[in-house]
Amino acid sequence: MAGHDQRPSRHPLVERILGGDRRAVARAITLIENEAPEKRMLLRDLYPFAGRAQIVGFTGSPGAGKSTLVDQVISYLRGAGLQVGVLAVDPSSPFTGGALLGDRIRMSRHAADPGVYIRSMGTRGAVGGLAKAARDVLYVLEAFGCDVILVETVGVGQSELDVLTVADTIGLVLTPGAGDHVQTAKAGIMEIADVYIVNKADLPGADALVREIELMLRDKASFREDWRPPIVRTVAARGEGTEAVWQAVRTHLAHLESGGWRAARRRLRHRSETTAVLHHLFDRFIAERAASDDTWRRLLDGETGLDPQTCAEQLWSELKQRVATTEHEALPGKRI
Amino acid sequence: MAGHDQRPSRHPLVERILGGDRRAVARAITLIENEAPEKRMLLRDLYPFAGRAQIVGFTGSPGAGKSTLVDQVISYLRGAGLQVGVLAVDPSSPFTGGALLGDRIRMSRHAADPGVYIRSMGTRGAVGGLAKAARDVLYVLEAFGCDVILVETVGVGQSELDVLTVADTIGLVLTPGAGDHVQTAKAGIMEIADVYIVNKADLPGADALVREIELMLRDKASFREDWRPPIVRTVAARGEGTEAVWQAVRTHLAHLESGGWRAARRRLRHRSETTAVLHHLFDRFIAERAASDDTWRRLLDGETGLDPQTCAEQLWSELKQRVATTEHEALPGKRI
Repeated sequence: MAGHDQRPSRHPLVERILGGDRRAVARAITLIENEAPEKRMLLRDLYPFAGRAQIVGFTGSPGAGKSTLVDQVISYLRGAGLQVGVLAVDPSSPFTGGALLGDRIRMSRHAADPGVYIRSMGTRGAVGGLAKAARDVLYVLEAFGCDVILVETVGVGQSELDVLTVADTIGLVLTPGAGDHVQTAKAGIMEIADVYIVNKADLPGADALVREIELMLRDKASFREDWRPPIVRTVAARGEGTEAVWQAVRTHLAHLESGGWRAARRRLRHRSETTAVLHHLFDRFIAERAASDDTWRRLLDGETGLDPQTCAEQLWSELKQRVATTEHEALPGKRI
Repeated sequence: MAGHDQRPSRHPLVERILGGDRRAVARAITLIENEAPEKRMLLRDLYPFAGRAQIVGFTGSPGAGKSTLVDQVISYLRGAGLQVGVLAVDPSSPFTGGALLGDRIRMSRHAADPGVYIRSMGTRGAVGGLAKAARDVLYVLEAFGCDVILVETVGVGQSELDVLTVADTIGLVLTPGAGDHVQTAKAGIMEIADVYIVNKADLPGADALVREIELMLRDKASFREDWRPPIVRTVAARGEGTEAVWQAVRTHLAHLESGGWRAARRRLRHRSETTAVLHHLFDRFIAERAASDDTWRRLLDGETGLDPQTCAEQLWSELKQRVATTEHEALPGKRI
């Protein structure tokens, strides 16, 4: 019986997730957060369903009104009959799970809606790194059938930037006067925004903030992916501007698709994730080699008196030679 | 004539640095900061002189009195006839060079002393990463003949921690009342301190701070390298406690040497730096392979429909097989 079916069987949660079982979704997310051994099989089997959802990130300083805006966008999308996933990522919080974080409570009116799945992630739940875990959770939500996934982050650190790299569109939420001036905002965040959202646009200083962003955009020599980010005014607390935000997001997605950028991003993401795993395997290889081969150990540990660069080059050239000798096209003399 | 001498010639700056030429030291540091092509040759030729100096890091919040303390320690060491290097690393500042940063001006009374070499490093000067550049600069100061190198950092981020990993001893400077409570201090910094220095010990709250540190130490299940960090009180502005600080630093160094920890650290550092270069070479290999081999490109870019983990494992097993086939001891069936 064993080995009778050559196809490896699928992780049992995947069928349930595809069938719309919310408890299976929650369970899968927990497995990812805890770095459970079966995580690898789970992700492998979820992968074929990736790329279905439109992923939109919202970032900005605390108090900018991100949660209120996300809440409005959920209502708008539900009105259009779309299934919505929400992932709130907060590296400054240890909390995780179904319980909503702080001001995210406002979104809870959607919590009972079967067409909405909301999840918060903090550092406690993410054993192997929050950004990686958050990106993996998106696979679960895509397989669950979400048409749109809204990712909300507090825009402060590298961890958020790492989460947002997988979004199709990144909206940066700014507010007038709140020390949120373009000059002082984190350069990294300003650079990756696809849509600027000036929230609380009824407050004094909104015009000045819009002008400031316009000036910054005018000074740019070139735009990433030929996209000039629009500026949208909102008063999220009154629901004003929500449709304009979504219009800008849709226009951006159409731009990405027509220019081939979306496919290019997907390739880049796959390459970077595959490369990360290759490096992990290479690390294990180095450790094993150090334990079994004295030349390796001596060069790695600095017992030869040579500097690290020279040691690495010696070890690498030995490896490279072995790879080259069994290759179809050996590349003699080619410096690597 | 060409190729007549098989030994590669040494970088011309190295001779001058070994001869005590301060301008050569400055020039070498600039080459390192700018990632000049000759940097690699320079570091290779400086490496044999590494490991001579005792490296002591001082970290703590801004305003804790680090610079004043370092200034006192310089005087103390000069009184003992030792040659002293000082490297002030500030990732929050773009400034670099011979000019002293902000409050480091206080150390300038030593600037004219030929037995002291002081250098500040900020982000502007470090093209390839501040922590790496700072660690490389230590090689220059060691070759220059510094008996002791004091590294001063503002203890806020990962970058400082990365610099401090190469110190033999790390002193954490805390002050009473300044929001510098043990509970709120960055966990990473608290964990790596070898000596706790309670500066401004004449202020109210010093006893409470000492007790707080003692309690924290008492609760620890084990100590890194079997070293229980002592707590030293200082009033750096009046020069009080400087000798006690240095005594604690010397005791720690003796502990590291007697237990074999210092040699173990050096091995670990060499392995981690060599491994980093190996990964860099591996990255270039992957990029080349992606450009020349369609199977690689398709797996890396996700054109097979397989998830990144599976793609990486396929690529790796192909590589591993090639390495194994030409190996002395092939390891059949061994999973890597």
